[in-house]
Amino acid sequence: MPGSDLQERGERSDEQVSGAKVIAQALKEQDVRYLFGVVGIPVTEIAVAAQELGLRYIGMRNEQAACYAASTIGYLTGRPGVCLVVSGPGLIHALGGMANANMNCWYKECCLPPPVSMADTSAVCQAASVIRSARQPLLIVGKGAAYARAEESIRKLVEQCKLPFLPTPMGKGVVPDNHPNCVGAARSRALQHADVIVLFGARLNWILHFGLPPRYQPDVKFIQVDICAEELGNNVKPAVTLLGDINAVTKQLLEQLTKPLWQYPPESKWWKTLREKMKSNEALSQELASKKSLPMNYYTVFYHVQEQLPQDCFVVSEGANTMDIGRTVLQNYLPRHRLDAGTFGTMGVGLGFAIAAALVAKDRNPGQRVICVEGDSAFGFSGMEVETICRYNLPIVILVVNNNGIYQGFDADTWKEMLEFQDATVRAPPMCLLPNSHYEQVMTAFGGKGYFVQTPEELQKSLKQALADTTKPCLINILIEPQSTRKAQDFHWLTRSNM
Amino acid sequence: MPGSDLQERGERSDEQVSGAKVIAQALKEQDVRYLFGVVGIPVTEIAVAAQELGLRYIGMRNEQAACYAASTIGYLTGRPGVCLVVSGPGLIHALGGMANANMNCWYKECCLPPPVSMADTSAVCQAASVIRSARQPLLIVGKGAAYARAEESIRKLVEQCKLPFLPTPMGKGVVPDNHPNCVGAARSRALQHADVIVLFGARLNWILHFGLPPRYQPDVKFIQVDICAEELGNNVKPAVTLLGDINAVTKQLLEQLTKPLWQYPPESKWWKTLREKMKSNEALSQELASKKSLPMNYYTVFYHVQEQLPQDCFVVSEGANTMDIGRTVLQNYLPRHRLDAGTFGTMGVGLGFAIAAALVAKDRNPGQRVICVEGDSAFGFSGMEVETICRYNLPIVILVVNNNGIYQGFDADTWKEMLEFQDATVRAPPMCLLPNSHYEQVMTAFGGKGYFVQTPEELQKSLKQALADTTKPCLINILIEPQSTRKAQDFHWLTRSNM
Amino acid sequence: MPGSDLQERGERSDEQVSGAKVIAQALKEQDVRYLFGVVGIPVTEIAVAAQELGLRYIGMRNEQAACYAASTIGYLTGRPGVCLVVSGPGLIHALGGMANANMNCWYKECCLPPPVSMADTSAVCQAASVIRSARQPLLIVGKGAAYARAEESIRKLVEQCKLPFLPTPMGKGVVPDNHPNCVGAARSRALQHADVIVLFGARLNWILHFGLPPRYQPDVKFIQVDICAEELGNNVKPAVTLLGDINAVTKQLLEQLTKPLWQYPPESKWWKTLREKMKSNEALSQELASKKSLPMNYYTVFYHVQEQLPQDCFVVSEGANTMDIGRTVLQNYLPRHRLDAGTFGTMGVGLGFAIAAALVAKDRNPGQRVICVEGDSAFGFSGMEVETICRYNLPIVILVVNNNGIYQGFDADTWKEMLEFQDATVRAPPMCLLPNSHYEQVMTAFGGKGYFVQTPEELQKSLKQALADTTKPCLINILIEPQSTRKAQDFHWLTRSNM
Amino acid sequence: MPGSDLQERGERSDEQVSGAKVIAQALKEQDVRYLFGVVGIPVTEIAVAAQELGLRYIGMRNEQAACYAASTIGYLTGRPGVCLVVSGPGLIHALGGMANANMNCWYKECCLPPPVSMADTSAVCQAASVIRSARQPLLIVGKGAAYARAEESIRKLVEQCKLPFLPTPMGKGVVPDNHPNCVGAARSRALQHADVIVLFGARLNWILHFGLPPRYQPDVKFIQVDICAEELGNNVKPAVTLLGDINAVTKQLLEQLTKPLWQYPPESKWWKTLREKMKSNEALSQELASKKSLPMNYYTVFYHVQEQLPQDCFVVSEGANTMDIGRTVLQNYLPRHRLDAGTFGTMGVGLGFAIAAALVAKDRNPGQRVICVEGDSAFGFSGMEVETICRYNLPIVILVVNNNGIYQGFDADTWKEMLEFQDATVRAPPMCLLPNSHYEQVMTAFGGKGYFVQTPEELQKSLKQALADTTKPCLINILIEPQSTRKAQDFHWLTRSNM
Repeated sequence: MPGSDLQERGERSDEQVSGAKVIAQALKEQDVRYLFGVVGIPVTEIAVAAQELGLRYIGMRNEQAACYAASTIGYLTGRPGVCLVVSGPGLIHALGGMANANMNCWYKECCLPPPVSMADTSAVCQAASVIRSARQPLLIVGKGAAYARAEESIRKLVEQCKLPFLPTPMGKGVVPDNHPNCVGAARSRALQHADVIVLFGARLNWILHFGLPPRYQPDVKFIQVDICAEELGNNVKPAVTLLGDINAVTKQLLEQLTKPLWQYPPESKWWKTLREKMKSNEALSQELASKKSLPMNYYTVFYHVQEQLPQDCFVVSEGANTMDIGRTVLQNYLPRHRLDAGTFGTMGVGLGFAIAAALVAKDRNPGQRVICVEGDSAFGFSGMEVETICRYNLPIVILVVNNNGIYQGFDADTWKEMLEFQDATVRAPPMCLLPNSHYEQVMTAFGGKGYFVQTPEELQKSLKQALADTTKPCLINILIEPQSTRKAQDFHWLTRSNM
Repeated sequence: MPGSDLQERGERSDEQVSGAKVIAQALKEQDVRYLFGVVGIPVTEIAVAAQELGLRYIGMRNEQAACYAASTIGYLTGRPGVCLVVSGPGLIHALGGMANANMNCWYKECCLPPPVSMADTSAVCQAASVIRSARQPLLIVGKGAAYARAEESIRKLVEQCKLPFLPTPMGKGVVPDNHPNCVGAARSRALQHADVIVLFGARLNWILHFGLPPRYQPDVKFIQVDICAEELGNNVKPAVTLLGDINAVTKQLLEQLTKPLWQYPPESKWWKTLREKMKSNEALSQELASKKSLPMNYYTVFYHVQEQLPQDCFVVSEGANTMDIGRTVLQNYLPRHRLDAGTFGTMGVGLGFAIAAALVAKDRNPGQRVICVEGDSAFGFSGMEVETICRYNLPIVILVVNNNGIYQGFDADTWKEMLEFQDATVRAPPMCLLPNSHYEQVMTAFGGKGYFVQTPEELQKSLKQALADTTKPCLINILIEPQSTRKAQDFHWLTRSNM
Repeated sequence: MPGSDLQERGERSDEQVSGAKVIAQALKEQDVRYLFGVVGIPVTEIAVAAQELGLRYIGMRNEQAACYAASTIGYLTGRPGVCLVVSGPGLIHALGGMANANMNCWYKECCLPPPVSMADTSAVCQAASVIRSARQPLLIVGKGAAYARAEESIRKLVEQCKLPFLPTPMGKGVVPDNHPNCVGAARSRALQHADVIVLFGARLNWILHFGLPPRYQPDVKFIQVDICAEELGNNVKPAVTLLGDINAVTKQLLEQLTKPLWQYPPESKWWKTLREKMKSNEALSQELASKKSLPMNYYTVFYHVQEQLPQDCFVVSEGANTMDIGRTVLQNYLPRHRLDAGTFGTMGVGLGFAIAAALVAKDRNPGQRVICVEGDSAFGFSGMEVETICRYNLPIVILVVNNNGIYQGFDADTWKEMLEFQDATVRAPPMCLLPNSHYEQVMTAFGGKGYFVQTPEELQKSLKQALADTTKPCLINILIEPQSTRKAQDFHWLTRSNM
Repeated sequence: MPGSDLQERGERSDEQVSGAKVIAQALKEQDVRYLFGVVGIPVTEIAVAAQELGLRYIGMRNEQAACYAASTIGYLTGRPGVCLVVSGPGLIHALGGMANANMNCWYKECCLPPPVSMADTSAVCQAASVIRSARQPLLIVGKGAAYARAEESIRKLVEQCKLPFLPTPMGKGVVPDNHPNCVGAARSRALQHADVIVLFGARLNWILHFGLPPRYQPDVKFIQVDICAEELGNNVKPAVTLLGDINAVTKQLLEQLTKPLWQYPPESKWWKTLREKMKSNEALSQELASKKSLPMNYYTVFYHVQEQLPQDCFVVSEGANTMDIGRTVLQNYLPRHRLDAGTFGTMGVGLGFAIAAALVAKDRNPGQRVICVEGDSAFGFSGMEVETICRYNLPIVILVVNNNGIYQGFDADTWKEMLEFQDATVRAPPMCLLPNSHYEQVMTAFGGKGYFVQTPEELQKSLKQALADTTKPCLINILIEPQSTRKAQDFHWLTRSNM
């Protein structure tokens, strides 16, 4: 490391100190409250100076995670988070976080309370008229609506007009997931048959299948509500675009649709179809969840987690099936309380996000918890941040949903059998991780609580204890069926001849 | 695109498969033997195809470490290593590795056995004449000499001409550290008083204090031997530059200096000065090493490690004091058997380097071990790769030299006392990590062996066991004095008023 | 050039042809009407295919100018212009144009008719209230207002509320320069003493002295009307920000200020001060313009040009004094009819801009002219485009205001004297160009008309002829005082001893 | 920032002046002799300061050309040339030059006299043995040989070993083109049938058809002599690679082949084949050159130019056919006296190169001329630099070989006929330029001499006058057959229906 000589390390030059103070003071004036980073010769002084001014400095274990944490702060608090890194390798390690933040459209609007713009009045009229004439309408509530703090106005719109709505992954909670008008449990059906869809800060990217058939009607009419002109008209030709602050525009729309009040008939065929589909889907999930076979499947796990999930907790999630299936089962009741790997699908963000959310929770509402639902592979990207969690004693419960691999893995017996004649460096399939790893020991290593869980009963019990004990972070390592959710298939790894 | 839909994941299109085979075949033709990475939708097939052709695929836990591993392979084997990442976040995570490799000048020469160039004959004569007239000569053996496999010729030069030499961090082992002509133990003295210095693939960067006074004589004559013209004449104006393959040029020089044989008088005042300085420095280290107070200091730890260090092991190291002090005590006897954080000072490289070295060791010489000496902060950057080490059962012994912080930390009592009235998020100094963390449990979590060590006796015993048991990886967590090597200073953290 | 072999040139592969057709078709569908470029192996086919679909391809002489031309089309027509370049050097030559377009905020909004957003109603009320309470109000009309086609609403606001306004360089003509409320002739005074300034798409960059004292009152209240949130609050802390489409927001403001009607008193002291300052400034200009000494000064030249300037012409301009002084004298009566070097101050843009404007003029309004006012140095950057102008017979009159240099030059006698004893490569001052260059011959070389003009009478006559003859492009080379507008100073070039 | 305020321009701050002096002094210490640029606010002072120290500043008309000029100086003089540009647009305009210099491998080696490296002795032996066993050997002399100033050693090798050689475009003149061993006139044959090819600083890029069949024997043995390891083994697998300074390596090779002397039999079948092919090709050229039909063809033009070309002149060239055909007819007798558009094929480099060459010529050898052979399209990229040439009165003769287009154009009658019913903006083919343009007037506009030439007699006469009159620059505009060298083809432009 440049500057590694002991003598040099010992000397804190006056210039560095005063420069650090100037920077810290500037951050304070911008109302920055949290800094994340890994200190090194030239930035330690800045961290110290920031602390002296009352800002929080959270020392992380890798700049990657530090940057993911910092980027979350803006979304949660409306004020910028700062990532403090040394030049050279530190900066490069942080690039992942910066790219991720950018893809999720965080950053730049934080610096001043942004002015509010409204949509063109005539376009609002036109949108209202399209909605009124819809036979199978659908609202989609996206991350942009959460970011714009539009929860009140959107909820009013949903309730007064009696419209079905669907949240995107990070739009969950803007209107509570258990709201009777939420049709998340009939997502595919709703998307596929809607004739008018209003997008509130939701982007037609891969998560929403780009807005294209066969996942949508070819002649579906999209109404886009967004703050960002460049997003309008991407992939599809919208019927109406409403450019402006999402909260302000929703209010405009609400006014148009409620004076005089227009309501979508709650006994329409469309509502009936959606309710039936939800019922049958929920029954299917319920059936999967109640399977008694061991190891557990994803649905069993998430069913039990949902049962005990505190209503006000933050839910952070990353992984493949873990994130996808978890999102359908775990409910959010508050806006901006779900954080997941997002548009960019970046693995390694979870613990950084959870740390940021826990800091915010701790300051706002002592007792509030962060539940961090990780796939086992995802956890590996930044698992060492568990030490950070323990050091700062953050109110985080990590669930590692462990299938021994990426997408899928092997059970311990198959693994052992596979290695009987040859070495893992020759023979281990690329998606396999070590079976039955004790990730919970990564938590106990730093004084937190850890559980190794193989049955529904153990899961219930460990969750109960973890949520009851507010003095320590906790990790519950949940073993599930390694080939879970995949159809039976030929087991080609063991049968390939020339390996 | 992150392909989160289950259906999409299930479909392995024919195009992907055949494209993957083409890539794998091309890698094989380039004589690539090892791939490192984290699989994801589009690259899993490549990993599988590579395995089918007999290449090794090593699945890592974060692209950062994967890239550090891949970059090491070129240095160790002369053949390129490959890092397999998904586009987007995977690529960005890998940037650190690529930047590091570049700063260390690895990569590009690997693709074909490079042609050999020699130095201009007249310049060689001139260099020989400068050496012959030197009163206080010094050879510096750098990483470039290791890379050029110049060990035989440089050793001959040292021995036949009876010249003192000094290795750079990664030049260690080109000539064994215990060679009587090695003046590593009098490094500062040797640099400061030499009148002629011959650099063999060593760069005058911060590690060598840029070649400038007061660390050097103002009129010191540098002779630079290097393959890279752009490196010649940086920072200093060399007396002679020898551009060419370092091995070939050393042979040219050797011929000039040995026909007829010229020898530097072994009883010169210069040799006497150096020998005396080495003796006094070694006595000082010895004194530090033999201190009985607990917690141990760095010298005590490395003294005991050196006692048991196998002569043929790879030594990988990263950290601040851990790397710097460790380098002076731990000896290398073979070229290209020391890997450290290098020119760029990147933290997080250690486990990736160790994994690569272990693969090479395993294939070449079963029984050979990799000793990975990590500072506790450094370990945190990629500690989850311990699972990788266990999964592939790699012959690695990790030593975490644990001072509870970055540069320095607190002991457990001080830490506790500090938090009595306020929270760690408010009060913890930026360089502190959690005291007495059980890093060894990160190893036991995955089935490896772990030791928590606080005394010289425990250290000796655990090292003995770790080196004797070749069936499992091992981590020895060595607690040292948290304020080790730092002068006593006011304890301003606890006394600052307004925090 | 890659692919320069005759055989290869002769072969137009089928793939290239069909690829070219696909690209041309896509451009047509985006409603692209004009392409500019320099053809080469891979792009000739695209140009041909575009022509076959009825698009215009204008072959330029350097990619630099082609890109400047293309970037103008978006501003003038609201549809994207396209620049067609070969890869490698062609692309690099075009970078200047791309950077310039970006600095001027052209490009990206062109692709779809953008949705319109309005300002927050409460912010509009607040802005109206600030304006109503202003004692010395000022409107500044910027390029953004021109781009947003807000001419009608801004004119109404100016007239109904009787407010003074000031155009920025490219805001000229949104409201005609000869409007009685235009206070351009008292620019410095107006900026310096206004207490409330409303910016309509005008940015507080160097052209507006960053909005800072001493050019402004320290407590001036800025109201910013802009489409771009990132521009709001730069350099100054605005009193109110109105984010939205500038035309829509102006209408909102107009409604607030006219129902009931509020008017700024036309007999206020502020109006009196401004009118007096305008009168005295105009008298000063008039005095300078009427000077009879030869060579002419800038004011004399522009005074005569203004006398004959057609009201509907485009005015394009670049240079230093030429652009700055010309802008104050030459009047614009129509929006989007002035193009100059803009925010970035790029030299070399003039002829490209003029060519684009001429194409638009020719299609919209045969008989409309483009007057391109160039400094002599500025003309040199892309003077060869005169061939392009002649080839397409574009209705352009170029005025080269020629002071034999950059900022200033020498007269012919001084030049000759200076070279009596030494060569120009040794002695010529960096800002001097060849005296009395016959730039008009660059026009006659390609069949256009050229005039070499040294007196007011010659200038009047040549302008009259140039504007009367609509069959040919024309260049009037106007010699002015080489040291014009500069105070007398020591003539150090001739007196320096050791050159 | 473009500093358009008059006041600001007037003030030369003391800091700027002293900073400028420091820069100028540093340039002088690096032995920089020539600066090229376009001045503006912050760099004028540097130009002035440089002049005061005796450096030459050449003010150009566009940064593009300035950068092309600066990059040439390194190649011609071995000392760096400097391009002085303002930040922002100036820098961007200069990028073309920088990219071009990089592709041609100029720049960086200039800063210090580079150390010389030699090839591995055993590789030299091996190369000599391959050459000795060759049945159809060929030497290719590239720009790298010129750059390395290897003319003497390569000429000795050619003559003592009696080997046939072929120069690349910028390798022309290392050994004179009229040397009896030069087989340039049988280029295709020589490449296609050689069994051993030695490349001296010549790269197997598109100019040499990448070294691949069918332009080469599939089993041809390449011996590569180059300073740059990365270039070795590109595209082909060479039989031997000799890495080192090209001049030093050629001497090593020469020693191997001449002690004892080995000679390739001058009466071999290979020599006979080559001589016959040269004779027949030269007859063909001669026949084309002697055609009496008007307009002239390329061969007629170059034949007459070659007749009068001074042996010591620099030849600069750019264009498509103009450069390709001109290169085969115009002879070079001195190394580093031909400059053309090079590897990158950049158009617009010619006048910048010519200006740089003229400065060098003027200083070294008064009376020496630069002949700049330009296609008409190529001339348009930087034609305004003619003013620069006239201002500094540089000894340049520009020949514009004018075919009214890019690759090809129309004659005046066809052009007129084409425009009878429709406008050029609709109808002009992309590759056509204005027919019969009087480019020579671009020269007379600035006081140089100009000729408009349509017949061989006019060409002869104008060349004679131009070369005799050393007091003024000159431009000869040579009209040639617009469809020259292209087979008859359907004239689809006039017959396309819907245009």
